[in-house]
Parts: sequence; structure tokens; C-alpha cells
Amino acid sequence: MTDPDLRGVVPPVCTPLTPELDVDVPSLERLIDFLVDGGADGLFFLGSTSEVAFLPDGHRRQVLEVAVARVAGQVPVLAGVIDMTTLRVLDHAAAARKAGVDGIVATAPFYTRTHPAEIERHFRGVAACCDLPVYAYDLPVSVHSKLAGDLLLRLAADGVIRGVKDSSGDDGGLRRLALAKRERADLAGFSVLTGAELTVDTALRMGVDGVVPGLGNVDPHGFATLYRLCRAGDWNAAAAEQERLIRLFDIVRAGDPARMGPSSSALGAFKAALHLRGVIACPVTAPPQIPLAPDEVERVRAGLAAAGLV
Amino acid sequence: MTDPDLRGVVPPVCTPLTPELDVDVPSLERLIDFLVDGGADGLFFLGSTSEVAFLPDGHRRQVLEVAVARVAGQVPVLAGVIDMTTLRVLDHAAAARKAGVDGIVATAPFYTRTHPAEIERHFRGVAACCDLPVYAYDLPVSVHSKLAGDLLLRLAADGVIRGVKDSSGDDGGLRRLALAKRERADLAGFSVLTGAELTVDTALRMGVDGVVPGLGNVDPHGFATLYRLCRAGDWNAAAAEQERLIRLFDIVRAGDPARMGPSSSALGAFKAALHLRGVIACPVTAPPQIPLAPDEVERVRAGLAAAGLV
Amino acid sequence: MTDPDLRGVVPPVCTPLTPELDVDVPSLERLIDFLVDGGADGLFFLGSTSEVAFLPDGHRRQVLEVAVARVAGQVPVLAGVIDMTTLRVLDHAAAARKAGVDGIVATAPFYTRTHPAEIERHFRGVAACCDLPVYAYDLPVSVHSKLAGDLLLRLAADGVIRGVKDSSGDDGGLRRLALAKRERADLAGFSVLTGAELTVDTALRMGVDGVVPGLGNVDPHGFATLYRLCRAGDWNAAAAEQERLIRLFDIVRAGDPARMGPSSSALGAFKAALHLRGVIACPVTAPPQIPLAPDEVERVRAGLAAAGLV
Amino acid sequence: MTDPDLRGVVPPVCTPLTPELDVDVPSLERLIDFLVDGGADGLFFLGSTSEVAFLPDGHRRQVLEVAVARVAGQVPVLAGVIDMTTLRVLDHAAAARKAGVDGIVATAPFYTRTHPAEIERHFRGVAACCDLPVYAYDLPVSVHSKLAGDLLLRLAADGVIRGVKDSSGDDGGLRRLALAKRERADLAGFSVLTGAELTVDTALRMGVDGVVPGLGNVDPHGFATLYRLCRAGDWNAAAAEQERLIRLFDIVRAGDPARMGPSSSALGAFKAALHLRGVIACPVTAPPQIPLAPDEVERVRAGLAAAGLV
Repeated sequence: MTDPDLRGVVPPVCTPLTPELDVDVPSLERLIDFLVDGGADGLFFLGSTSEVAFLPDGHRRQVLEVAVARVAGQVPVLAGVIDMTTLRVLDHAAAARKAGVDGIVATAPFYTRTHPAEIERHFRGVAACCDLPVYAYDLPVSVHSKLAGDLLLRLAADGVIRGVKDSSGDDGGLRRLALAKRERADLAGFSVLTGAELTVDTALRMGVDGVVPGLGNVDPHGFATLYRLCRAGDWNAAAAEQERLIRLFDIVRAGDPARMGPSSSALGAFKAALHLRGVIACPVTAPPQIPLAPDEVERVRAGLAAAGLV
Repeated sequence: MTDPDLRGVVPPVCTPLTPELDVDVPSLERLIDFLVDGGADGLFFLGSTSEVAFLPDGHRRQVLEVAVARVAGQVPVLAGVIDMTTLRVLDHAAAARKAGVDGIVATAPFYTRTHPAEIERHFRGVAACCDLPVYAYDLPVSVHSKLAGDLLLRLAADGVIRGVKDSSGDDGGLRRLALAKRERADLAGFSVLTGAELTVDTALRMGVDGVVPGLGNVDPHGFATLYRLCRAGDWNAAAAEQERLIRLFDIVRAGDPARMGPSSSALGAFKAALHLRGVIACPVTAPPQIPLAPDEVERVRAGLAAAGLV
Repeated sequence: MTDPDLRGVVPPVCTPLTPELDVDVPSLERLIDFLVDGGADGLFFLGSTSEVAFLPDGHRRQVLEVAVARVAGQVPVLAGVIDMTTLRVLDHAAAARKAGVDGIVATAPFYTRTHPAEIERHFRGVAACCDLPVYAYDLPVSVHSKLAGDLLLRLAADGVIRGVKDSSGDDGGLRRLALAKRERADLAGFSVLTGAELTVDTALRMGVDGVVPGLGNVDPHGFATLYRLCRAGDWNAAAAEQERLIRLFDIVRAGDPARMGPSSSALGAFKAALHLRGVIACPVTAPPQIPLAPDEVERVRAGLAAAGLV
Repeated sequence: MTDPDLRGVVPPVCTPLTPELDVDVPSLERLIDFLVDGGADGLFFLGSTSEVAFLPDGHRRQVLEVAVARVAGQVPVLAGVIDMTTLRVLDHAAAARKAGVDGIVATAPFYTRTHPAEIERHFRGVAACCDLPVYAYDLPVSVHSKLAGDLLLRLAADGVIRGVKDSSGDDGGLRRLALAKRERADLAGFSVLTGAELTVDTALRMGVDGVVPGLGNVDPHGFATLYRLCRAGDWNAAAAEQERLIRLFDIVRAGDPARMGPSSSALGAFKAALHLRGVIACPVTAPPQIPLAPDEVERVRAGLAAAGLV
């Protein structure tokens, strides 16, 4: 398990909290079981969907300890090490290493204004000081810079990164990565994962290795089925399953945009759904996110019902 | 000193590092003395100019401990608590409280996409759980959202924030704040500080209370003189001193923009200048910033010479 | 031909210019023939790839007159009416109507800061005063706002727009449009076109109706083949052809990014390729675009050679 | 008058429209008289405040014809030539030349993604083909790029541009321009104008030559008084007048931001104010702007009353 060569469905795991905003360990353990039993091929803790930006370091450490113990080697465990720059990321990487994860996931620097040379230096610096596989996380909506395809390929060829999670929305760029991987021997073992849960079947057709679907928390079985259908080449059935999941995804718009931002709405909806499905004990999200109102939770319930999940 | 009512020149203090990237305590102590002796009215540690985004939590704590001990009550000490969201900020606030600072400086949430209601909830949440004066830090270039003037005034009137450091570049908005403060009794004691070191005299004319000049690390005496001239109403002499400092500020462009970003260039130049002036032992900046090349350091030296500082 | 129900390959036609920056009519006629003979299902004049932002109104009118005469009803002719706001767009729409085109393509307002209600009012205002089918052009990189999926569906259901050209890069959103169209009877006849030339096969799998490929100027036969293979369900052969076109697309990076912007590079490369293929007489682009240097043109030639086109 | 050497108060003149959206010539003439009588030192037609982005070319031409005839040489007349790229701008410049204006005002290219080299080529191309003084318009909020100070100084020294209207909000940059002008003989005659109507007194202290205040439509006498007080060195009286105008400026927030964008609100408020003051016959703004509701117009009236203007 120290060499994950990551592929398949790798949900970014929600972080259940108690009403007092502590990590809800029993709920987290139930969620892990739910996802592994649901067919996840790997689990990504401390990603955006995990509210990593909202969790203090103590919470982060606890999540990883629970994760490694509960997963117990059934699937690879990845840990987000999301922070502003190199030395801070390395602190998280050391904690993740100590917890026993199989790989870490790092973004470009943020908060500071970055230059491409600084982004490259950052990934090389993280990888050099951390003996875990490093996955690059391309998330311009949060980080405010895009990881250039040529940079990713160079870092991959040099063994700096083992894969990429692409949440940039640039499907042409994603396909260039997948194509380059197929054509170049020096990129063997490089994992190209998409964060786009609405285009899994088409991404897999392009040659992508797997998906990191936030919605996979709510319906892991659906994503596992979708992945299996794609691998079996049953593209029409895959498209039908994908379309069912697209309709389900509308729950992310449950929250009123006049009252809250898209993170509050989407993460609130995922947690409300997990609560409604009986997986977690409490749907609370971390501050300063705005909680869903009762009628907004009803919209989540209706979405689950339409997708056959309650 | 627990009630700073901040005004005057409050430099955001650089964080000297050793070649091994540890906090260089003797250099930091010399820099503190240099700034206090130079006439600083307060010191702001762990701001952008302090490379706060680049410093691990251990470094942050050490900086504050050294700061409080060395300043020893001569001037107020503010601490940046820069992090993505509420609970993470509160961890920094607790460390700052323990270190004994006089106030904390917090931005809006970042990395996550925020809504105005979430920004307000964030500041109220930070203030409610932290018995230190809170200053809002408006820095859209890093945080990617602007603190609305009406929000700041509402938070000030409610006692949530004690002041604002405005690095937004919106001088019309800054003036509206200063004007509102003058007109409204419920805003007494609210400090309006500008981060714009090139327009200190005009900002003070508008009614701003003080300035947080990154360049103040390099020439604290200049900013103290400028402030004193403004307070004395000697606006022509103030303008001349301001213009000398504007020319000196050109050192921030010492680094080649084809090789590095603006943070590497500006922070590298400030540290190179402090090194050339004999204040700090080593000009290194934290990774992934790109170091200045020798010819770039020469540009800094030339700028210092032209300003009469070497 | 007054009811295009647009589908298939609809290249955005380059605008050949003389060295004196006039419209090069014989080259434009040759290009039109090249594209129609190459299998284009429609032609889109005065789009971004046509340098519409660079063409004075006289050039725009002349292009449409040549286009309508030369196409002579073989395929539908669309005309971009790209301008800042409603009344200016209506002037272009009147000229397009007079020239005899089959439909117009309009963006959201730009230059002015827009609100969603203003974007909706804009499309309704354009459609109400113009008796031609209106296609919405979603191009956030130029317009700096995204057309929301719900807005597009509402405008389509109300008969305001007949289709959309999506160059937003949001493939999840594109798929939601295609899915909604399939599920809702009131959206029959609504054309969903993608501007993403690197993901044509996967977009068609999602249910998209066609593609508007800038690269289709250079290799119309390739895109026609790709489209035909997709429609025949030969997805593996389609993927291979798509991948050949992805490699060819690298010519858009022929220009040195230190010397020029991405428009200069990409439009310069398309025109250089058309010149090298003998279709147009002169590869000049309109000012202030930077011309490709000889070694950059050689990169284009090498890309054409690798794709079997020279 | 062919050599304006522009300074003082230069309002960007609103464009009165009839209910049918034609140019309301008698109202425009009254507005011109109102501004000249109110003490304007120049008039800028077809700027952002003039709704230039909303006006078809026929309206633009008519505005300039009326302007030149009505102003009749009393003050310099500038014309905005706002369009996407060089050739389109040159068409507007030719029309402005024919109308007899004293200078033109051009932005960087927009809609297309620009590179600094392309921006420079644009201004040089416009100036080379147009024998009128060219003023650069720095408006990042609309154009999405900032005119670099070094570029402006180079263009000024080379005689390409005669001045700049800075609406970038970068007061440090503005001051560097003013300082450079004072220090360099080759910049004599270069006009540095600010578009920031809330900081006129402080900008003039920095050495700026004049202001282009949108609010100057509503209260030209106030801005003329402010300018005169500054030139007389009566800075305290100037600050008081500036602060009265800052309070008046709050009318730009009359429109509900949930219903409309900031252009609709601000331009609607200026026109409502001119209507309430009896200067123009109809407060309509061009589509797709959202009209102010009656209660929003009442807010404008209250603002005027508080400023002593009705």
C-alpha cells in the first residue's frame, strides 16, 4: 500500500462534526465504512469537500489518525496538506507521514502572489523534504492560479509528483495530460484524476485514471457502478448512471445564494444528505459557513428521493 | 497597553531568518530595537511583510514571544492571525493571547469562496471567542475579496473590531471610513490605518489615524519624520519626505519579473536592505520565494544610497 | 435555411486580410470553399477566431456580404454581433440581417459591470428587436461573466435564444444543458454547441449537438471525419482522430509568451497554417496583435507536417 | 484650443436620452451650459459616465457634433474612442476628428486577452494614425488590465500620449506619475488626471493636474469650488467641500444591488439627479441597464437635499 498508483473512485471524505464542532469520530468511522463498502478505490481526507480550510490542525491530525486506523489498509489513504506555502505544507506533511497515510495532496501556494517559477520551486521543495508520494491539486477557484500542463508533466517526469487531481475545469488540458501519459514511457505510474463528478464517463474515455467526486460521499455506490460500467466498456449504461448522478448533484444548489456562498450550500447539502441517509449524526458545517435552513434541507431530501436514495 | 487605540507609524515587522530557515532571534531583536528607536508608534508582527504566509506555526509563536519580550511595553504589539477560516484563526489568536500581544489582525476568509454574510460571521466569531482587540485586515490582492465599508462600520459600531488596516488601494473607501469616524460618536476609538506607504501624507490629511508601511522596516526614521511633519501641519515638508520615500520604494522592483513574483522581489528587497544596513544577519526569504541575484541586490544598494541610507 | 437547427461542425471562420489590412476577398472565398468542401455543416463568421474584436464595422459588413454570396445557401451562415451592450449589438444585428445571414451570435454585455438581471434583459432586448435566430455565446475569458445554465434554459424555453455556443470550459454545465434539452419538450430545437475543439467526441457523447472549432479552419476534414465517426458510434476511431487534432492544436502555442499574448499566438498560428496550406494569400493578423516570427512560423509548419497536412 | 494641456475640472458628460432612446439634444445642450457655467475647465464626452459602452455609433457622432457646436471653444472638448482594438478605435478617432474635438481618450484593448507589448503597440498605432492629442484611459474595472506606470511614462516621453485619466484606484501609482512629471523635463505638458472624485484635494496635493469627476455632472459648482480652493492653498476649506461631495456621492448607491449592477445604480442616480435639478428632461438610461424604482429616486432626491442642491 506504500505505492498506491491511484485509480478508480477516490471520494474526498466529508469531516463529520459534533454540535460543539469537534470531530465526530463515530460518524467519521461510519462514513469511512460506508465509502469503502460502497466501492471506493481510495479515500482522500482533508480535501476541499472535507472542509480542510475550516479545520484546525488538531482536527486535521485526529481525522488522519481515525482514517488510517479505520481504513486499515483496505484502500489507499491520501491526505490533503492544504496551506499557503512550502514550510507550512511541510508541517502538515510531517503530521500526515506520522499518521501513516499513503500519499499527500498539495496545491500551489496561495494568499501570496505567485510566479510559475515559485510554484515549481514549491512542489520540488515539498517533495524533497517528504518521503511520501505527492499529488498535485489543481484548484484555481481556491488557489487563484492554474497549474500549467507543461509544469505538471515536467514534475511527473522528474518523479516530483505521482499524480494530479484536476479540479480546474479545463477538460482540454486534462485530456492533454492523459494523452501525454499514454504516449510517454517516463510518465508510467502517473495518476491523472479528475475532480469533475459530472463528466466521469467522458473523462475515463479520455484516458483519465480516476475521479475524486465530492458527491461520492452521498452515493458511493453510484460512482462505483459508474466506474465499473466504464471499465467494462458499457458506455450507454455508464451515461445513464452518470446522468442520474448529475440530477442528484443539484442538491448542491439547495442553499439560497442570497444568504450564503457556494461552499456553505454544497458542503451543507452533502452533510445534510449524509445525515438524512443515517450515516452521520449531525449535519453541522464549520464556521463561518451558513447552515442550511429547514426548507433547504427539504430540497436535499427531495433530491435524494428522486435519486432513489431515501 | 491593553487598550492600544492605535495610531501613528506601525511597521509590519520583517521576520529575519537564518540560512537554515529558523527564526534569527538576535536579528529580530535588533530589528525591533531599530524600529522602536526609529520612532515606531506600534509594531505589527506576522503581517504580509513579515512573510506570515510562509512561516510555520512554530516560527509564528517564536516571533511573538521574542516580540513581546523585546518590545517590553514600549509600544503596542499587534499579531497577525492570518489563516483561512474561523477556527484556524482562533488557534492563532489563542497563541497570540498567550504570548501577550495587545491586539490581533485578521483577514476575511480565503481559499474558500466567501459570501458577505460569511465574512461578517467570521469576524463576529473571531471576536466573540478571543478577548483581544481585533483589527480587520483588508487585503484583496491576497484574500480575493474586499471588505465593504458598510460592513466595517457596522462591526466597528458593534465593538467587534477596533480598527482596520486598509491595503485595498481604495482611497475613496478609506476616506469614507475616516469621515464616518469623525461624524459618528459610536465610532470613537476606531483606528483607521492605511497600508499604502506612498500616500501617507494625503491619507493623514483625510483623517486616517496611521500607517502600516512595509518600507518602514528599511527607513523607520523617514516614516516617523513624515508622520511628525504631518501632525505638525507642515505639509510641504511632509510631501518632500514622502517623495523621498516614494523614490526609495522603487527597490521593491529590484527583482526581475521574468524570474520571480512581486512578493519575492519586494520582500527580498526589504531584507536585502536591512542586511545592507547592518540590521539583520542574513537576507534569506522563506521558500518558495526566489532569492535576489547579486545584480538585483546592487539595485537595492543603489536605492539606499540615493535615499541617503548607506 | 431560415430555420437552421444548428448541428455538426461549424467552424468560426478566420478573416483573411491583405498586407494593407483590408479584407482579402479572394482568400476569404477560397477559405469558405475549403471549409464547405471539407465538410462543414455551418459557418460562423465574426467570432473570436475571426478576429471580430479587431475588425472595424466596414470589414464586418464586407465579410458578411462575401460570406452570404459565396456560401449561397449550401450551409447555414451565422454572424457574430459582438459588442458591448444592447443598442450597439442591435446595429450589428441589423447589418447582419441586411446581409442575409441565418442567425446571429451575441455575448453578454462587457466593458460595463453587469448584473444577472442586466444580462437577461440584454438577450431579451436583442431578440425582441431582431427577427433572426439568436445564439448565446458564453465566453467568460473575454466577457468576464459566465452565462448561468438556468438563465440559458429560461431564455431557450421562452424562445429568446435558439442555441448556445459554450466556450466557458465548464463541461459539467454543458452536460446539464444537453441533459435538460433531452428531458424537456419545450427545449426541442435548441442547439447546444461547444467551442472546445479538444473534447469533441466526449461532448457529442454527452448529447451536445455540434462544435465550433477554431482549429477547424486549419483542418476541416479532420473535424468532419471526427463528427462522422461519432455519429456512427465508432468511438475508438473518433478518439484517435480527436487525439491527432489535439496534437495539431499545439500550434496555438507557436508564439513566444514573453513576446505576445495568447490571441496573437493562436490566431497567428491559424492564419500561418492557412497560408502554408495555400488557402489564404497573407497570414497577417490585425493590430495590435504581434506577428509570429519566422522560427515561430516554422513551429506551425512542423505541427502541420506531424499531422499530415503539408 | 488645439493644444489643450488639460487641467482642472473636466467632467465626463452624461448623455441625456429621450424615452425613445435617441440623444436628447436640447437636454444635452442644457447640460453643457450647466457644466461650463458651473466652472468646468474642459468637457469629456463619450466616457464611461456618458454611457459610451451603451451608445451606438450614430449616437456617438451626434453627441460630438452637438458638443463641439455648443461648447464653441469655451473649453477643450475631449472625446472617448472606446472600443476593443486598434482599427475600431481609429474609426471612432476619425469621427471625432471630423467633429472637431480637441483630443481623444482611449483605453487598452479589451475583450481580447492582451499582453503588455500589445497594449503598447495599440497606443502607438492609434497615435500614429490620428493627428489629435491622445489621452490614455486607465480603467481596469472595465478593461481588465492595468496600464503600467513605466509604459505611460515611456509613451508620454515619446509624444504618443498627451495625458492620462487614471481611474485605476492605484493612488501610489498615480503619485509616481505626478512625481515623475515634476522631475523630468521630457514630460512637460503631460496631463495627469484622476477619475477619483472622492480624493480630489489630496490628488491635487500630490501634483495631479485635474480631475474627471462623474459626480461633476450633478454638482459642477462644487467641484469648481473645490479645485479653486486647492489651487489657492486653502486646504481646510477644500477638505470640507470635498467631504460635502463625498456625502453627495452616496447617491450612486441608490439602486438596490439585489436588482441591478453598479453601473445601473450610479448612472441612473446621476441622471435622476440631473432630472430632479431640472437640467435634463428624462432620466432614462440605455439598455440593458435597470431603471431606478421610485423609492430609489427618492434616495437620490434626499441626497441632493442634504447637499443643498434642491
